[in-house]
Amino acid sequence: MNATTMLDKTDAPRLATSMTMKALVYQGPRKKALEDHARPEIAAPTDAIVKITKTTICGTDLHILKGDVPTCQPGRILGHEGVGIIDQVGRAVTAFKPGDRVLISCITSCGKCEYCRRAMFSHCTTGGWILGNQIDGTQAEYVRIPHADTSLYPIPQGAEEEALVMLSDILPTGFECGVLNGKVAPGSTVAIVGSGPIGLAVLLTAQLYSPAEIIMIDLDDNRLDVARKFGATQTVNSTDGKAADAVMAMTGKRGVDTAIEAVGIPATFELCQEIVAPGGTIANIGVHGKKVDLHLERLWDRNISITTRLVDTVTIPMLFKTVGSHRIDPKLLITHRFKLDHILDAYETFSAAAKTKALKVIIEA
Amino acid sequence: MNATTMLDKTDAPRLATSMTMKALVYQGPRKKALEDHARPEIAAPTDAIVKITKTTICGTDLHILKGDVPTCQPGRILGHEGVGIIDQVGRAVTAFKPGDRVLISCITSCGKCEYCRRAMFSHCTTGGWILGNQIDGTQAEYVRIPHADTSLYPIPQGAEEEALVMLSDILPTGFECGVLNGKVAPGSTVAIVGSGPIGLAVLLTAQLYSPAEIIMIDLDDNRLDVARKFGATQTVNSTDGKAADAVMAMTGKRGVDTAIEAVGIPATFELCQEIVAPGGTIANIGVHGKKVDLHLERLWDRNISITTRLVDTVTIPMLFKTVGSHRIDPKLLITHRFKLDHILDAYETFSAAAKTKALKVIIEA
Amino acid sequence: MNATTMLDKTDAPRLATSMTMKALVYQGPRKKALEDHARPEIAAPTDAIVKITKTTICGTDLHILKGDVPTCQPGRILGHEGVGIIDQVGRAVTAFKPGDRVLISCITSCGKCEYCRRAMFSHCTTGGWILGNQIDGTQAEYVRIPHADTSLYPIPQGAEEEALVMLSDILPTGFECGVLNGKVAPGSTVAIVGSGPIGLAVLLTAQLYSPAEIIMIDLDDNRLDVARKFGATQTVNSTDGKAADAVMAMTGKRGVDTAIEAVGIPATFELCQEIVAPGGTIANIGVHGKKVDLHLERLWDRNISITTRLVDTVTIPMLFKTVGSHRIDPKLLITHRFKLDHILDAYETFSAAAKTKALKVIIEA
Amino acid sequence: MNATTMLDKTDAPRLATSMTMKALVYQGPRKKALEDHARPEIAAPTDAIVKITKTTICGTDLHILKGDVPTCQPGRILGHEGVGIIDQVGRAVTAFKPGDRVLISCITSCGKCEYCRRAMFSHCTTGGWILGNQIDGTQAEYVRIPHADTSLYPIPQGAEEEALVMLSDILPTGFECGVLNGKVAPGSTVAIVGSGPIGLAVLLTAQLYSPAEIIMIDLDDNRLDVARKFGATQTVNSTDGKAADAVMAMTGKRGVDTAIEAVGIPATFELCQEIVAPGGTIANIGVHGKKVDLHLERLWDRNISITTRLVDTVTIPMLFKTVGSHRIDPKLLITHRFKLDHILDAYETFSAAAKTKALKVIIEA
Repeated sequence: MNATTMLDKTDAPRLATSMTMKALVYQGPRKKALEDHARPEIAAPTDAIVKITKTTICGTDLHILKGDVPTCQPGRILGHEGVGIIDQVGRAVTAFKPGDRVLISCITSCGKCEYCRRAMFSHCTTGGWILGNQIDGTQAEYVRIPHADTSLYPIPQGAEEEALVMLSDILPTGFECGVLNGKVAPGSTVAIVGSGPIGLAVLLTAQLYSPAEIIMIDLDDNRLDVARKFGATQTVNSTDGKAADAVMAMTGKRGVDTAIEAVGIPATFELCQEIVAPGGTIANIGVHGKKVDLHLERLWDRNISITTRLVDTVTIPMLFKTVGSHRIDPKLLITHRFKLDHILDAYETFSAAAKTKALKVIIEA
Repeated sequence: MNATTMLDKTDAPRLATSMTMKALVYQGPRKKALEDHARPEIAAPTDAIVKITKTTICGTDLHILKGDVPTCQPGRILGHEGVGIIDQVGRAVTAFKPGDRVLISCITSCGKCEYCRRAMFSHCTTGGWILGNQIDGTQAEYVRIPHADTSLYPIPQGAEEEALVMLSDILPTGFECGVLNGKVAPGSTVAIVGSGPIGLAVLLTAQLYSPAEIIMIDLDDNRLDVARKFGATQTVNSTDGKAADAVMAMTGKRGVDTAIEAVGIPATFELCQEIVAPGGTIANIGVHGKKVDLHLERLWDRNISITTRLVDTVTIPMLFKTVGSHRIDPKLLITHRFKLDHILDAYETFSAAAKTKALKVIIEA
Repeated sequence: MNATTMLDKTDAPRLATSMTMKALVYQGPRKKALEDHARPEIAAPTDAIVKITKTTICGTDLHILKGDVPTCQPGRILGHEGVGIIDQVGRAVTAFKPGDRVLISCITSCGKCEYCRRAMFSHCTTGGWILGNQIDGTQAEYVRIPHADTSLYPIPQGAEEEALVMLSDILPTGFECGVLNGKVAPGSTVAIVGSGPIGLAVLLTAQLYSPAEIIMIDLDDNRLDVARKFGATQTVNSTDGKAADAVMAMTGKRGVDTAIEAVGIPATFELCQEIVAPGGTIANIGVHGKKVDLHLERLWDRNISITTRLVDTVTIPMLFKTVGSHRIDPKLLITHRFKLDHILDAYETFSAAAKTKALKVIIEA
Repeated sequence: MNATTMLDKTDAPRLATSMTMKALVYQGPRKKALEDHARPEIAAPTDAIVKITKTTICGTDLHILKGDVPTCQPGRILGHEGVGIIDQVGRAVTAFKPGDRVLISCITSCGKCEYCRRAMFSHCTTGGWILGNQIDGTQAEYVRIPHADTSLYPIPQGAEEEALVMLSDILPTGFECGVLNGKVAPGSTVAIVGSGPIGLAVLLTAQLYSPAEIIMIDLDDNRLDVARKFGATQTVNSTDGKAADAVMAMTGKRGVDTAIEAVGIPATFELCQEIVAPGGTIANIGVHGKKVDLHLERLWDRNISITTRLVDTVTIPMLFKTVGSHRIDPKLLITHRFKLDHILDAYETFSAAAKTKALKVIIEA
């Protein structure tokens, strides 16, 4: 009997994992590199190691690269989205086994804590948004997923992987923070401020509730063209600073039932306050870096709600079903494809969206 | 046959109404008087004339007197609360007849418009808060109530009138804007910022949902004493500027599920933002005169809701039942009583609440 | 001065109304006739007289003709659906004036009573389903509509009248009693038992919530063909008595989230109980003539809900918007068109649906 | 090195566990015994062994003893309620350690499966109600709890153990299946059919929502006396078969908003159907052995809901808080106390409730 055989079978680091892998590593503000990096290993019995097959880049990754996310330290592998294949599982993992195809949620959830029991996985006391932030992420050949049973989702037979990458973060974010929080409903009038990838994810998923009008607002005519193709009933280019007037005219001076902020700056949140109808909702999705003015002197008697939310990804199982039944087509968001070896090009393309017209870029590992 | 007999019986001005009555009239900023005033007459077939038996003064009346409510012009009879007896009804009124005892809602609602059909009576297109604001109010011997069928409520046999005056505005305001909008629930933790009459109305009605903790915050120890008697489980005097620390300590650093703003200034709204727990709600009741800072840079990922509301008084029928079954006792709010002839004294007492310890004053007409 | 001039201008019967009109009159079980009938007159100040432009026949009208609806007495003009033009209004009507195009709700609601204030118009204490039942209905040239302000809806410019006739009853019934009560949601699995006009109305409106699967169940292959064209994802012919097995197989033995009963007999309600998943809902729409078995010995621990409902038509304004924005197309339900003069043929066609493939028939007045 | 030392430290059976313990064992219909039984051992890494300090007997245990619960086979240790102290934990248990005081939920939940993620723990695919049914239960000195992290709850310092035993099953059952499913609300009218322990648990927890009226119905005057002490506003002895008439008289012929069935036989479910008001809810809690009649011929147009539910125990954390804040006092339900050695006497007392006036009996292990 030798040392190796005495090791616990499932928890043991396998020989393979001593090998290295390619990974996109954050090296401090404005610095990143595709590096050789040690493969991740099982660290807790609830972990799984996933071999990434496809991942993508999120606007948040660009925020990190600007140095705006202090929880993310240099040396961190970025990425919190992706699909892959289970490589190893810790001994307490019961829902998955090596070889299973899985979707990775951008939110890690233990399923046990007070917040998880309330389905507020975003605030899991030992999870939340940690992937590619406080622990190494998915822009690599392999990733370690804590609380695997409750942070991974099985991919059904025959499902298209590319489409599903959009279910790690962008579609649930648009749907939960925008559509659900915004109480989009059949026959309602919705304005989406910001026609970038996340605003377009709102646009796609808002149609699950059949609103009568979806008004898309942006500075970029190209993005507004895309929005019309994706189902916006009206568009407003806000370059002239008169977007509020335009929306009020479109709604018979009533305003919108739901105003969704999908940018993250004071001006767009201000616009939402100007166009929300009495009884309406402002759903904030944008990641804000500074405080905004809230005009309670006008809004105190307007019976409105304002919501904020970090995505909980509680709707991933539902979104699987709507994609499977062709109620929405997430692939519409994919504009470019790269191999992991060319992920720096992918970042360049994604960062220069105004020029490249990039929405989401797929990275194949 | 003469002209008089040809007039429609119910719509006709009765001889009696040519007489005058006493009324408290707003005469422009900082000016008011108890005047002789023409009695109101039926102006539309849906009107009723109510002989006031008891009314009261609201904090909003003081706002008007400061000149802060531009919709209320000099010459207006103030008051939007009260109980009384039906004196006359227009011919389209079907729910009431002369002699019926009624409660007057502070909100006039037609029952027909888009907003009324959504139970958002506060925004009724021909009603809303107009009494004692855009039309003459209840601090008088008689008042005309438009849309009487849907703006008055029958008083059950044996009910105490004084208690019911609290159902015209203050209790539904506390309950709808604070308790319901704030999603107060069994076992939850609630903070009420402001222990004036409206904050205390929240405190009374919050207990209908059995929260585990109700923390009352104010600058005035007397009002906090009252709050403890009314059911607050903990109190915080915020004079030292450290109320947020105190609340966080009381909640194990978690914050409160519901923070209710019952003052109407930036500092108290700021406090609510500091103490709301992830997943919690800030329910604004205060009438704000200026904008506030909203710290989206801290709150964007906290999964919170902020609500505003002008009371709809949709819960008056329910509140009748809870009062009738002794689940709440609105009379606790009544500290002083005056005859209509002495309403100027009543105003003085109510305005000097810090000194007089006045909460609500009853005016007997 | 003569008697006529002394009459109130708006409430007076106009000379025209002394003329007769054509109307379909119930004459007792299995008997009906197109008769000359006195035109209706304003009877209360809240009434309106509507000149019918288009009406239709409902399955309930056939029930009445079988003698199954004791509240409907011989001599009654049938019909509770339709669109038309305001001919006269009582003096208390404020929302409409002669010449306005209106949709007639099958439910009359006063907007004032306890039930109306709870938006449960179906149980209005002076309304509810009375048209073509307890008062004369719409299968005539003119109809009197009580509580006109709250029982009629203005037709927007440019809207198609035929489509809107479907909003008087069948679409809100399918939507409120089936889709809303059944909690149809994005990604959910729905079974509709009965592919007649009402089941198809459920099918059309269910898609406003983007369920993943809609399984239609009927005995008639033609109706199942129609269902597939209308958006059913799967169909089951239940002739062989094995529909439950088929549905369980289609759902991986899990059952459906929502089972909608749209027939009204014990066997179909039984089927719903067999196919509902744990945590699911059975929404009953069918008009039942006898009691059914409820298998609490199997269902007590299944966490299900069963709902019943007479349509409240609270969703008519919302349905206007979804039709206006082309989210649903009610005209799909219309298979035949007749002039009022040929309404007996229309009844014959509608009654022989298995042969004629009739769904809804339009009657032009 | 020997075999024992090679065993994993935490998962290993400790020597102590080879010892026996006392346990109440089901031996087939109408047979039970207090036996010496092997102590339970950790069987999966997510298990915990709990040393029972207090347990109780449930009406369901009597059902098992009658032979009415086929899933429970002879040889089974009964009991699914209790508090105790963690004795051992499997290696994947992270929320508890030996020595921790815990409350045992009657429902075992994995926290991972589709149902657990929907907070429908009662239908957990590897849990649900298995304790004292499909696996050995709590009427013993020790019990093995699967999925310990999500099936046990930490007991706060200073909490009274006896009171908390009521939180394992009876209070959450009354609250979730009766009060929440029944939509009890401030000002509403509630009837509870059955004033046994579970009906009284409904009565206690219904008051968390401050209904205006709670009418208790039973055949036993003693139990109705208890109900009045517990807060029932009215009581009806249904022995004369005229309970429905009595309730209709008490509610002005309107019926009740919520009718809660807490017995489990056709007659009591029938009564609920007779007394429910339009728009109301029938919440079934009773464990039914046979089908019941559902009078859809009367109820199809009454806009009612009927719900069934096996308790999910999702409200245990909330109930902890309401007990801690003295909003409810579960100890009121405790009438008798026994040592585990005398559990057969406890069963006798509990079974003869009509004579002994027993509600819940505490068994001290």
